Amino acid sequence: MNRTLVKQALEDNLLAERIRIQGWIRTRRDAKSFSFLELNDGSCLKNLQVVVDAGLPDYRRLPEATTGAAVAVEGRLVESQGKGQSREVVADSLEIVGVADQTYPLQKKGHTQEYLRTIAHLRPRTNLFGSVFRVRSRLAQAVHRFFLGRDFVLIHSPIITANDCEGAGELFQVTTRGTPASPAGSDRNFFGQPTYLTVSGQLSAEAFACALSNVYTFGPTFRAENSNTSRHANEFWMIEPEMAFCDLAGNMDLAESFVKYLIQDIRTHCPQELELFQRFVDRELASRLDFVLGNPFKRLSYAEAVAILQRSGKNFQFPVEYGVNLQSEHERYLTEEHFRQPVTVHDYPRDSKPFYMRTNDDGRTVAAMDVLVPGIGELVGGSQREEREDVLRSQFERHGLDSQKYRWYLELRRYGTVPHSGFGLGFERLVMFVTGLANIRDVIPFARTPGSAEF
Amino acid sequence: MNRTLVKQALEDNLLAERIRIQGWIRTRRDAKSFSFLELNDGSCLKNLQVVVDAGLPDYRRLPEATTGAAVAVEGRLVESQGKGQSREVVADSLEIVGVADQTYPLQKKGHTQEYLRTIAHLRPRTNLFGSVFRVRSRLAQAVHRFFLGRDFVLIHSPIITANDCEGAGELFQVTTRGTPASPAGSDRNFFGQPTYLTVSGQLSAEAFACALSNVYTFGPTFRAENSNTSRHANEFWMIEPEMAFCDLAGNMDLAESFVKYLIQDIRTHCPQELELFQRFVDRELASRLDFVLGNPFKRLSYAEAVAILQRSGKNFQFPVEYGVNLQSEHERYLTEEHFRQPVTVHDYPRDSKPFYMRTNDDGRTVAAMDVLVPGIGELVGGSQREEREDVLRSQFERHGLDSQKYRWYLELRRYGTVPHSGFGLGFERLVMFVTGLANIRDVIPFARTPGSAEF
Repeated sequence: MNRTLVKQALEDNLLAERIRIQGWIRTRRDAKSFSFLELNDGSCLKNLQVVVDAGLPDYRRLPEATTGAAVAVEGRLVESQGKGQSREVVADSLEIVGVADQTYPLQKKGHTQEYLRTIAHLRPRTNLFGSVFRVRSRLAQAVHRFFLGRDFVLIHSPIITANDCEGAGELFQVTTRGTPASPAGSDRNFFGQPTYLTVSGQLSAEAFACALSNVYTFGPTFRAENSNTSRHANEFWMIEPEMAFCDLAGNMDLAESFVKYLIQDIRTHCPQELELFQRFVDRELASRLDFVLGNPFKRLSYAEAVAILQRSGKNFQFPVEYGVNLQSEHERYLTEEHFRQPVTVHDYPRDSKPFYMRTNDDGRTVAAMDVLVPGIGELVGGSQREEREDVLRSQFERHGLDSQKYRWYLELRRYGTVPHSGFGLGFERLVMFVTGLANIRDVIPFARTPGSAEF
Repeated sequence: MNRTLVKQALEDNLLAERIRIQGWIRTRRDAKSFSFLELNDGSCLKNLQVVVDAGLPDYRRLPEATTGAAVAVEGRLVESQGKGQSREVVADSLEIVGVADQTYPLQKKGHTQEYLRTIAHLRPRTNLFGSVFRVRSRLAQAVHRFFLGRDFVLIHSPIITANDCEGAGELFQVTTRGTPASPAGSDRNFFGQPTYLTVSGQLSAEAFACALSNVYTFGPTFRAENSNTSRHANEFWMIEPEMAFCDLAGNMDLAESFVKYLIQDIRTHCPQELELFQRFVDRELASRLDFVLGNPFKRLSYAEAVAILQRSGKNFQFPVEYGVNLQSEHERYLTEEHFRQPVTVHDYPRDSKPFYMRTNDDGRTVAAMDVLVPGIGELVGGSQREEREDVLRSQFERHGLDSQKYRWYLELRRYGTVPHSGFGLGFERLVMFVTGLANIRDVIPFARTPGSAEF
């Protein structure tokens, strides 16, 4: 008999049918002449209640049906008489597939998130983390749907690379040294040059945008940053669209549409999970999502932002003056207090920005933009790219970069160059924003942070 | 004025409207009183013809409108009088956005694929590679649609890992040694242990399947294999579904549905690209795709396959006896000559297989399966996983693996263990199968192979 998922049993038109349910026991309650099993199979947040009559031959196996045990149940799906659930299965057969003894760590509810990180292989069996990873999956699929609907082409940019796109130097090196492929210790020649884990797929995406017009990447990126904060992981996924014939304004338009689309998608398709996060993670989640969905994103220049912050009369921990990076307190003031809208800040001073951003006519700022949302701060960072070969060459000089290494990148400007723009959205930041979770370790299946590469 | 993509101009209901087209010039033909531009913007295979009248003020810029130059054209979209295209734009304005001089490498058609690999940043501007990467993108999006439609949850399994799932030892090491993060040379302690680039997301997927039932990964995987063949790359993408409460038969069912779904999707959505591959890459492409779509996959055991090969009377280069790995010539004989169907071979001898495959009752074979298709050979490899803790422990011993390192993996068997199965499909193999291209370097944006990590 084919399996029916709990989600289907609860939602589809299957009432009165005999079905086969397979899952794990969350709880068991024994009454005099029957027992109730709460079964979860991860297909949705909700459990399915199973009624096992004491007259059933399989009833003798019930002592093994403890929390965490895997079972297969066959029986009729009926409307439930009890409170708390709409449907239940009246079992006519019960099979114990895999037991779970008293050492099973998820016996009781109420474990801390810190503890659950130490059993990352089991935590998706909890309501919270099952929900997090269903939402993460749904968001990823929504990303693809958004771009497919706009004729964007997905590009798998290389993970192993010789470039450092951001120029920050926080690179992991990739070697065959000390492995069977090169036991002798020297590996410089495996790829003919030192190679690293990518920090961004942008440069690859630019090459493809200059051929296919609208492209995006969605892949893992890496930072060898030795910082153990709740916001940093050494491995995280990034989405990077890149559009030919597109200026900074078009870039900001796309970023706003994209963020709203993703939030709306989760609103529509994961209401049970959002309700759980709202109740147990963050009481302000729904209002924050509404805030982003319901307001146009206010656009202002960095210079205007600085002027507003200086005029605010606020006593910021980090004083504001033209040229400094905006801190979290400044970002929050702008979106939460001053504008009460999501905010897109554009045209930043050139000095603190990477080589590839387009220099504005004033010669001092670049066509960069950041989207700020409450709670998270910067959710999106992007720019128009420098499409003029001579300006790009002088940028390489200013940044002390070897233009020979970027010959192919310069050629994109020599042959049919076009204005083009793109942005990066850190996928984990998005999942944190949508779930309300405050620690990046809790939105990644098996997080990579300094000192931690278990599982 | 908003941009119209060439694809929209050719397909949508825009006739007689004034539109703005932006793209790159493929060719220009000059007649006495007007010129024709063939414009491509990568949104589809076809060009859009633009007619520029000599009376137009912008006509003086025409000498700059050479092959490879980027232009923006505004004008009315009309039905074409000429042959070879259905619609054309009668320009009323022509802007040269970026020139391309005589050194532009794609002046003429007919470059070899070998040469085009050396200009991988420009080759997506050709008909062939534009088509390859549009098809690659469409296939990736079809993968997600297939699994979303079946309630599978996407899992981003870690790229940096301390495990070697396949036990083949062909690992890249990830270090911070020699980088700014650890200039002194010692990095053992960044993650607290030596770390490598993943060869498979399977073990992570198993943990999540034992919580969410049906999951899949789709991410980059790596082999530090020092072999320069047309079939091997050091970095490639893999799709790995994993299903709880699923045996080998269910696994084979899913693999067959999956492969057929993907091919059908490309058949439906990329007919122009398939026609190009058929004409210029592989005259047998369409019949091979039909072969897979139109036939059920024949299932037979490895032992049966060996018996058929031995009885065949064929003079194979590699003699067949029970225990040897099937070679390409054997696989081709089975699918192309003997059965004339795609073939799924199952229940292989245990000795050549990884530790995680489920031992059959005979004690000598494992519940493994490979899907063989013509031309490519093995397209899918999978297995039912060993779910019995004691058998798995003895497998660790047989393979000389430290079971302490797999403690979490063993715990999946201790707490509510379930029969579960999954497979891996190498994404590049699939793209090669669907495009007919014979070299893996030609289906990856920027391929990573020994000695080559440019771009």
